[in-house]
Amino acid sequence: MKQKVGIVGFRGYSGAELVRILDRHPRLEPVLLEHRKDVQDHGPLPDRHARIPCTPEAVGGEGLAGVFLATPADVSMELAPWVLEAGAKVVDLSGAFRLRTPENHRRWYKEEHTQPALLAEAVYGLPEFCRERVRTARLVANPGCYPTAANLAIKPLVEAGVVNREAGIVCDAKSGVSGAGRKPSLRTSFCEVTENFSAYSILDHRHVPEVLMTSGLEEGEFSFTAHLLPLDRGILETIYFRTKVESAAALAAIYEKRYAGEPFIRIYPPGHVPDLRAVQRTNFCDIGIKLDPATGRAIVVSAIDNLVKGAAGQALQNMNLVLGLPETEGLL
Amino acid sequence: MKQKVGIVGFRGYSGAELVRILDRHPRLEPVLLEHRKDVQDHGPLPDRHARIPCTPEAVGGEGLAGVFLATPADVSMELAPWVLEAGAKVVDLSGAFRLRTPENHRRWYKEEHTQPALLAEAVYGLPEFCRERVRTARLVANPGCYPTAANLAIKPLVEAGVVNREAGIVCDAKSGVSGAGRKPSLRTSFCEVTENFSAYSILDHRHVPEVLMTSGLEEGEFSFTAHLLPLDRGILETIYFRTKVESAAALAAIYEKRYAGEPFIRIYPPGHVPDLRAVQRTNFCDIGIKLDPATGRAIVVSAIDNLVKGAAGQALQNMNLVLGLPETEGLL
Amino acid sequence: MKQKVGIVGFRGYSGAELVRILDRHPRLEPVLLEHRKDVQDHGPLPDRHARIPCTPEAVGGEGLAGVFLATPADVSMELAPWVLEAGAKVVDLSGAFRLRTPENHRRWYKEEHTQPALLAEAVYGLPEFCRERVRTARLVANPGCYPTAANLAIKPLVEAGVVNREAGIVCDAKSGVSGAGRKPSLRTSFCEVTENFSAYSILDHRHVPEVLMTSGLEEGEFSFTAHLLPLDRGILETIYFRTKVESAAALAAIYEKRYAGEPFIRIYPPGHVPDLRAVQRTNFCDIGIKLDPATGRAIVVSAIDNLVKGAAGQALQNMNLVLGLPETEGLL
Amino acid sequence: MKQKVGIVGFRGYSGAELVRILDRHPRLEPVLLEHRKDVQDHGPLPDRHARIPCTPEAVGGEGLAGVFLATPADVSMELAPWVLEAGAKVVDLSGAFRLRTPENHRRWYKEEHTQPALLAEAVYGLPEFCRERVRTARLVANPGCYPTAANLAIKPLVEAGVVNREAGIVCDAKSGVSGAGRKPSLRTSFCEVTENFSAYSILDHRHVPEVLMTSGLEEGEFSFTAHLLPLDRGILETIYFRTKVESAAALAAIYEKRYAGEPFIRIYPPGHVPDLRAVQRTNFCDIGIKLDPATGRAIVVSAIDNLVKGAAGQALQNMNLVLGLPETEGLL
Repeated sequence: MKQKVGIVGFRGYSGAELVRILDRHPRLEPVLLEHRKDVQDHGPLPDRHARIPCTPEAVGGEGLAGVFLATPADVSMELAPWVLEAGAKVVDLSGAFRLRTPENHRRWYKEEHTQPALLAEAVYGLPEFCRERVRTARLVANPGCYPTAANLAIKPLVEAGVVNREAGIVCDAKSGVSGAGRKPSLRTSFCEVTENFSAYSILDHRHVPEVLMTSGLEEGEFSFTAHLLPLDRGILETIYFRTKVESAAALAAIYEKRYAGEPFIRIYPPGHVPDLRAVQRTNFCDIGIKLDPATGRAIVVSAIDNLVKGAAGQALQNMNLVLGLPETEGLL
Repeated sequence: MKQKVGIVGFRGYSGAELVRILDRHPRLEPVLLEHRKDVQDHGPLPDRHARIPCTPEAVGGEGLAGVFLATPADVSMELAPWVLEAGAKVVDLSGAFRLRTPENHRRWYKEEHTQPALLAEAVYGLPEFCRERVRTARLVANPGCYPTAANLAIKPLVEAGVVNREAGIVCDAKSGVSGAGRKPSLRTSFCEVTENFSAYSILDHRHVPEVLMTSGLEEGEFSFTAHLLPLDRGILETIYFRTKVESAAALAAIYEKRYAGEPFIRIYPPGHVPDLRAVQRTNFCDIGIKLDPATGRAIVVSAIDNLVKGAAGQALQNMNLVLGLPETEGLL
Repeated sequence: MKQKVGIVGFRGYSGAELVRILDRHPRLEPVLLEHRKDVQDHGPLPDRHARIPCTPEAVGGEGLAGVFLATPADVSMELAPWVLEAGAKVVDLSGAFRLRTPENHRRWYKEEHTQPALLAEAVYGLPEFCRERVRTARLVANPGCYPTAANLAIKPLVEAGVVNREAGIVCDAKSGVSGAGRKPSLRTSFCEVTENFSAYSILDHRHVPEVLMTSGLEEGEFSFTAHLLPLDRGILETIYFRTKVESAAALAAIYEKRYAGEPFIRIYPPGHVPDLRAVQRTNFCDIGIKLDPATGRAIVVSAIDNLVKGAAGQALQNMNLVLGLPETEGLL
Repeated sequence: MKQKVGIVGFRGYSGAELVRILDRHPRLEPVLLEHRKDVQDHGPLPDRHARIPCTPEAVGGEGLAGVFLATPADVSMELAPWVLEAGAKVVDLSGAFRLRTPENHRRWYKEEHTQPALLAEAVYGLPEFCRERVRTARLVANPGCYPTAANLAIKPLVEAGVVNREAGIVCDAKSGVSGAGRKPSLRTSFCEVTENFSAYSILDHRHVPEVLMTSGLEEGEFSFTAHLLPLDRGILETIYFRTKVESAAALAAIYEKRYAGEPFIRIYPPGHVPDLRAVQRTNFCDIGIKLDPATGRAIVVSAIDNLVKGAAGQALQNMNLVLGLPETEGLL
């Protein structure tokens, strides 16, 4: 028999993706938790999933093993306490519980954190680097989409000590529009985006601290620019640094060793890099390397689907871990 | 009375753009030079422009003041000698005459140059930096699209000595598909490009030497990656470097001073950067700056329309100069 | 010296297009009338146009010869009376003054008309069919985008009596997203539109009565469906009917005769039809015909740019007429 | 243990989709049959599927239960005989075996059929209408994408006698670009398609005879126009006819009755119609109805994914039937 897991925010892009993925999960069954009615449904066909109010009584009565919060940060802060109280594990897809300290949260999110104890307790859910801590967590902060692609590419190199940190790392990141959520805005209107391309949040994107915390880089060592691509889904990051490593193959070997046995990381043959097509609608993070040994200039391209490995897929990876299920269940 | 100018390659994207722009030019009249019939026409409506064979006799007889070569490099090398012989000035939009020496050409284009004397004679036509030499040229090598956006952003800073060259400059460049030309290929097929995004020619793009030659940077100081955007036209380059300049405003002031009176350069208020929409179908190069004074990380965004300032528009700017016409004629 | 014309709604797509077109007009100078501040500006670069408040005093004091209302219908009803009072001619781009009678307006717009006298006075501005009446009008109702493409294709055939009206005419219409305006909505959000296609307002689109009024068809003779294309601008209508005319050439001849001398109508060679590319950013309406003489099935394809011939361009065509200027000024 | 099925043309869009779908099939295992090496592979990652030469020896030796031909019609005619000879069932995705008679094939495909006996033997595989014949077939002609969407919408109404055939049926069809295949051409180049929309094959598309044969309509009763949408995948057809049926609900009831128990047909609530998003990456055909009872004008919208229900998905549906497997296996 399947365990039930709740989804708040199932009409948003990440939430809807989660429902789609869970529909193929052999051991989990999604239950839609109706929190606010102000978001429009998808299409006129009747939805075949169970749907209950997002209240302590309903959630408690339903016996949910876990709940995904695919909600804005303020809603996550409001819901997480009582959902945990009701006995369900929580995987939160918002930025509410990622930054560990109220000071850090205040700086980057420009708001006071209302649940500092939970903020301190939450485990940052990048399974490739903290799988064991996730297994025993009550509350998992699912990583941001940009930091997922960045950390998976950068952290092994920083750990291996092959990056010239003084010269700095540049991460030029490009994302599809679904990363901005389903709420209508001029910025994500079709006519403003199609045939257009733009940079935003240059140097001060709120995802930056997640990269610093995970990779161990200092703020001054890491330059990050986000860009909006005229497409629905996918993140591609082009990462520049200087190294004394003598070949792309040697850099690839560092990745291969670090990620041996990892089900969702694919390292490309040296000189080849992924495009978005390779990862769309999958939970993979694809990494490719190019290097000019003569001058030490290295470039790594990291690609994910922002709604899967960058949101719903990784959230399920975390929920699988939290509930003691095989990590890849429903994701391959 | 209007002077006549010829266009070879009028069915390609750059050539067709040139025809469109020339249709508004008060002093020049386009004549289509029919070189090869293997490229498909645009639409079934009759074209109203004069059309003659691309032969020495026809070109000589027509009294053309200038000829635009919107052709592949090998065709440009073949045509340029006799067109000049026929008494017309030449603005070549290909890479044939940009790299000054046969050695440089061989390294980046992987082929022997068949017209070394013309290669030596050709003037590199970036008017903002070599206007006077263009005025007296017979043969102008119109700059590549990527180097135009890069050099206009980088050169004033290098000249002003405000770039930490040891740490290097990163230029992460993104282009629309029209930059690849009109010849069908799998790489530019709709289904391969739409909803996709990819990096290519990492570190070894043949446009790199144009940046080095113009900006004065060494190869090891400059990291360049080209990317293919799922859109028709436009180039946006995000340029990263380290500086001791204390504010974005101070960087802006360097540009403002260098480009005072320049009709096609627009510097944005500090903190603001251009998107592609701002420059599409114009001959402008828009430049915006962001700086973190605490750590010296600087980011400049440079945007052009690859078919206008990156090709046909700049070619006309050069032809105007060569023919003694006002530089902005037909372009504002 | 140029005459001044005002534009209300210059931040919307039609209004902004109008500003762009007027920038090339040799005899008119746009003045931006600031009506509401709740719509976001385009880009951070300073706008170089004159800008005054949209009040009777300012409009009166500025000596505007005409005013374009690129506003929602309710705003147009509110502004038109006092703008006319201030002595300026009005070309209204909304649906406010198109349907002649309050009854008709109520049926299709589901609201009471607040200015029935002006509704009765307004001239429907499809110049190809009512040029003389427009010349002497104070208030011109600029046609809807769909009806412009439909009427220009259908009316000559109905007038010529070659359509089997009993079998009915089908008009399958497809429009780019800019037709829905710049106000953000879920329906026009990038992620909802890209890679998607949908039908809407089947049989009951509020543009239908404009086709009936102009073409003389009865409601039961005309089946209309609007569709949303994943692109910015352009309308293409595929129109099906039955006829006894023996060839596409004979149908083309009807158009050629009716539109002889018309500057903005292009009839294609029989068997060829326009695509959107042919008309984008132009004021043309392109028409192509295909016919199966054996069975009398005829298909006409009509294409316009919804923001030009379907809005701003036609509005300027009308303003030119109203102000006694050459009709094509600024439009070719 | 899984049965093996071969795929020729696995690098094309339909073939690659088939591989993707088969990867989730619990009882079939795809084997890639290498026929020609002139088509480019997908991406640099190693493919994990078995790959053998497409020769009688290899196919015979592999013990394939069935073979999908995702090849051009001429290749299918060449391969089908010996694949059948080798003992495998064949589902052909091309147009080679759809039109029953050499005369019909010659008229629409402008070529002689080289395998008239197989043409006569082939079963047209639209399972909703000929499931039983497919079960016992050796060779299944998988329907074209346009006719699949058209016949599923039209045939139940024609059978029920509710269409005014004298007034005729109009089918205005729009398809994504993947329907044109993966071979590069100017017509399917990104810059020609993006932000564009066009009609093609008006009245003489080679898919028309499939609609006539299946629905029972006469050629003069059916007007069909294909259009190219600027998107990757999906077909939406807007179908117009006249009827005496008194309500959309009554038309819906006809469909509901005819398609009771059909796993891949979804009928929408009256007044609602599907968009492409509803069917992309699924094997569903979604159908919605709008009706004006006063005048008898009816409109049906039918939507499929051209690569799934219009190609690979339906091909697997047929292969499941042919091999005696549950029809929906791998498709829900």
